[in-house]
Amino acid sequence: MKLNCDMGESFGAWRMGEDELVMPLVDQANIACGFHASDPQTMRNTVKLALENSVSIGAHPAYPDLVGFGRRAMAVSPEEVEALLLYQIGALDGLCRAEGSQVDYVKPHGALYNAIAADASLLRAALTACARYRDGLPLMVLARADNSGSQRLAEQLGVPLLFEAFADRGYAADGSLLPRGTPGAVHGDDDSILNQALAFARGAPVALADGGSLCLTPDSLCVHGDNAHARSVLRRLRAGLDAL
Amino acid sequence: MKLNCDMGESFGAWRMGEDELVMPLVDQANIACGFHASDPQTMRNTVKLALENSVSIGAHPAYPDLVGFGRRAMAVSPEEVEALLLYQIGALDGLCRAEGSQVDYVKPHGALYNAIAADASLLRAALTACARYRDGLPLMVLARADNSGSQRLAEQLGVPLLFEAFADRGYAADGSLLPRGTPGAVHGDDDSILNQALAFARGAPVALADGGSLCLTPDSLCVHGDNAHARSVLRRLRAGLDAL
Amino acid sequence: MKLNCDMGESFGAWRMGEDELVMPLVDQANIACGFHASDPQTMRNTVKLALENSVSIGAHPAYPDLVGFGRRAMAVSPEEVEALLLYQIGALDGLCRAEGSQVDYVKPHGALYNAIAADASLLRAALTACARYRDGLPLMVLARADNSGSQRLAEQLGVPLLFEAFADRGYAADGSLLPRGTPGAVHGDDDSILNQALAFARGAPVALADGGSLCLTPDSLCVHGDNAHARSVLRRLRAGLDAL
Amino acid sequence: MKLNCDMGESFGAWRMGEDELVMPLVDQANIACGFHASDPQTMRNTVKLALENSVSIGAHPAYPDLVGFGRRAMAVSPEEVEALLLYQIGALDGLCRAEGSQVDYVKPHGALYNAIAADASLLRAALTACARYRDGLPLMVLARADNSGSQRLAEQLGVPLLFEAFADRGYAADGSLLPRGTPGAVHGDDDSILNQALAFARGAPVALADGGSLCLTPDSLCVHGDNAHARSVLRRLRAGLDAL
Repeated sequence: MKLNCDMGESFGAWRMGEDELVMPLVDQANIACGFHASDPQTMRNTVKLALENSVSIGAHPAYPDLVGFGRRAMAVSPEEVEALLLYQIGALDGLCRAEGSQVDYVKPHGALYNAIAADASLLRAALTACARYRDGLPLMVLARADNSGSQRLAEQLGVPLLFEAFADRGYAADGSLLPRGTPGAVHGDDDSILNQALAFARGAPVALADGGSLCLTPDSLCVHGDNAHARSVLRRLRAGLDAL
Repeated sequence: MKLNCDMGESFGAWRMGEDELVMPLVDQANIACGFHASDPQTMRNTVKLALENSVSIGAHPAYPDLVGFGRRAMAVSPEEVEALLLYQIGALDGLCRAEGSQVDYVKPHGALYNAIAADASLLRAALTACARYRDGLPLMVLARADNSGSQRLAEQLGVPLLFEAFADRGYAADGSLLPRGTPGAVHGDDDSILNQALAFARGAPVALADGGSLCLTPDSLCVHGDNAHARSVLRRLRAGLDAL
Repeated sequence: MKLNCDMGESFGAWRMGEDELVMPLVDQANIACGFHASDPQTMRNTVKLALENSVSIGAHPAYPDLVGFGRRAMAVSPEEVEALLLYQIGALDGLCRAEGSQVDYVKPHGALYNAIAADASLLRAALTACARYRDGLPLMVLARADNSGSQRLAEQLGVPLLFEAFADRGYAADGSLLPRGTPGAVHGDDDSILNQALAFARGAPVALADGGSLCLTPDSLCVHGDNAHARSVLRRLRAGLDAL
Repeated sequence: MKLNCDMGESFGAWRMGEDELVMPLVDQANIACGFHASDPQTMRNTVKLALENSVSIGAHPAYPDLVGFGRRAMAVSPEEVEALLLYQIGALDGLCRAEGSQVDYVKPHGALYNAIAADASLLRAALTACARYRDGLPLMVLARADNSGSQRLAEQLGVPLLFEAFADRGYAADGSLLPRGTPGAVHGDDDSILNQALAFARGAPVALADGGSLCLTPDSLCVHGDNAHARSVLRRLRAGLDAL
C-alpha cells in the first residue's frame, strides 16, 4: 500500500503546504494543475521535487474554482469534465516531460472527486479522459466495500483503477466515509490513525463506529503533512508500513 | 509556403471567429490554449475541426490575460515564460491526444510573440520549452531579412524554426513590420495583399514603402478570416498558391 | 410594468448582445458586474449607454464563473453570497458614480438567481446585501402566484422587492416556470408572447398549458434582444405597452 | 505622520500576512480589492478588523494579475486604469458600506503604483478615478523631493494627495527610492529604520548613501508586519512616533 499526498498547492505568491518536508515521506504526489491551485512554475518546481525524491507523479485536476479551492460542488457536464481533465492532465504532463518524466496516474480533486464518486456519468467521463490521454493511465478513486460497479466500467474502458483509503476517517459499512460532523467521522488520536492504516495495509478488518467491521484493500492511503503533528504521525506511519 | 490562422479563440459563451469557414482554407491552425482565449471544450472542438480538415495543429500560447486577449505587454521572466509555454503546449496536446493527434508546432500569441521577437532571453526560453517538450517540436517566429541570430540559438537548442510572414503588412528593409499607423503599414487593397503573398511564395522580392525591396522566404503566411471580405481574399490567395 | 434586459455581457475582446440597439427599447438594464461577464471598461460604457437612454441601472451579480457564464449551479454559502453581492454591487456603483449616477436595483444572474429563488437562506443573504449596501435598494426576484414568503422576509429586512415575469415562457399554476424541454415551456409564436406580456401588464390572467390560468402582477418583464427577430418582437411589445 | 500597511492579502484558502497582529499598530490599512489579492469575504473580514481597531481604510487596487500578485508591469491604457480603479474602489466601498463605513483613500498597488509614479497620463487617470468616485477622496503617492508636478495636476482635478515614504529604503537626492540591489537600497539594521522614520516624522533631513541629505515631509509611512521581527520594529516605531 502506497502513501499519496496532495502537493503543489501554492499559487503565485501564496504558499501552502510543506512539500519539501512531506515529499520524502510519501510514494505518490497528487500535483495540482492550476484550476484549484498551483501555477506553471509551482507545478514545475513540484515535479522536480517529486523526481528528486523518486515519488510517483499524479495529476490532481479540479473544477475551475481558485477562490473556492475546488471544494465547491459545481454543475459541470460530463463532456466538460472530460475536456477539463484532458487539459489539466496534459498541462502537468507538459511540465513532467520537460524533466524527462510523465504523469503516472490521475486523482481528481475536491468537489470533482466527490462528484465522480457519486455520479456514474462523471466517472465514465473521467475514465474516458484517462483512456484517451494514454493507454493504461490509471484513475485513483475512493475504495468502497463493493467496487464492482466502478471496476466494470473501468474494465470496459480499459482503465486501471487505483483504490485509495483514509486512515484518519471513520467509515460506514459500505465503505463510504462518515460525513464530517457525525460521531466517529474523524479519528482524533494518533494510534487510531496508525492502527487503521496498518489494518488497511495488511488487508485486515477495521472497526467501525457502529460496532461492525470493514475490510478494504486499498492501493494507496491519502495522507496529510501540512503541520508538524501531521508530519510526526506520517513519519510513524511510514516507518510502520516499511516494517511490514 | 503554408497558410496559418489563429483559431479556437472563442471563450465559454463568447464566440469569436468563423473557424468552420476558415479551416478548409488553411494548412495550419494556431489554437489558443486557455490563457488569452479558449477553454478546454472549445480547444477540443477546434482540434476535431482541424483534424476533419487535415489541418496541422499548432499551440498558440499566451500571457495569462483573458481580459486583454494576451495583447498587453507584461513583465514576465524567462523562467516563467518557459513554464507557461510547457503548461499550455501540454494542455493542448492533451486534447490532441484524445483525438489521436498531437501538437505539430508552437506559435506564441500577441504580446508574448512580440516579446520573444525582441528579447533573446525570452526567445531562448521559448526554444527551451519546445526542446524539452518534444524532440523536434518547431517554434514559429517572425521572418526577418537576417535570421542568423535566432537560427544560431535554435540550432544550439536543437529546435526547428518556422518563419512566418504577413501578406497584408508593409515591411521595413530589415524585415520588421512597419508599425501600425505609419504610411504603408497595412495594405488596403486586395491585389497588393495577393501580390505580396505570391512574391513570398516564389521567393521573389517584395516592394517596400521606402522604394527598396525585401526578399523573405517564409515557411508560412499568417492569414485572417474573421469577416466575409477577409475570407474572399483568403480564397483567392489559396487558389493562387495552389496554382503555383 | 417595466421592461428589463441583461446588458453589458461582452468581456474583453469578446462581443455579446446588441446593447446599442436594445437599450432604447427597455426601461431597466441589468448590467453584468465582472463575475460571469463584463469588465470595468465594458461596464463603464454600458452605464453611459443606459444613461444616454434614460434607462434605470440594475446590478446583475453572479457566481464567479466566467467560463460557465454564471449559469452553473455552485455550492456557495450564504455568507459568501452576501459578500460577493456587496462586492459586485459596489463595483458597478463605482462606475455609475463616475457618471453621476447609481445602481437602482439588484437582479442576481443565472444560477445564483435560481438558487436564491429556491433557498430561503440565500434569499436572506441577497436581501441582507441590498439592505446593507443602501437603504431602500430593491432586489428583483421571480414573481410567483404566492409571494408571501419572500415578501415577509423582505419586509423584515426592509428591502423593496421587484417582481419580474417572462413573456416567452410557460408557467405552472404556482407561478414557477415550466422547465425547458417540457411541453409549453417556451412560446414559439410572437403573438403568444405579446399576449402574455400584455396580460401581465393589465393584471389579467394568462392561460396555462394545463388549461388553468394564472394571474401575476409583475413590476417588470424580462426581455431579450440579441437577434433581429427578438428585437422586432421587443419593438411590438414596447409599442403595445406604451399604448396601454 | 501616519503608518500605513498592506492588508487583506489572503486569497481564498491561501493565507498571507498577520493582519490581526498588525492592525492594532497602524493607522491606515491598504486593503486589496480582488485583482492582485483578496476576495469578497477576505475583504469584508479585513474591513471589520480595521474598524474594530479604528484604522482608516484605503482601497489598494491593482492590475488584474493574481498569479503575479500585481507586481508585473503591464501595458494598460489610462482609460482602462481609470475604469479598473473605479471598479475596485467601488467593490471595497461596497463591503465598507455593509459595515457602516467607507473607503477613506486610494493607494494603487505594486506595478500599478510604480506606473502611476512614472507616467503622468496614468497619474491623471488615477486622479480622475478618485475625483469621479467621490469628491475629496485622496490618492496616496510616493513623496519626492519635488512634488510640484503631481500637486499641480491633483489640484487641477481637485484631488487631495497623501504622500508616503519608506523607513527601510535608501533614497536618491530627488526622493526616488534607490533600486533594490544597489548599495544602501535597503536598511538592514533596525536603528537606521527607526531613525529614518522619526526624521521623516519631525521633518528633519535624512542622510543619503551618497553623503547628501533629503528632507521629505510625508503624510504616511509604509510599514510591513508579516514576520515577528518586522512587527517588533513596528512596535518600536509606533512607540517612537507616539512619543513625539
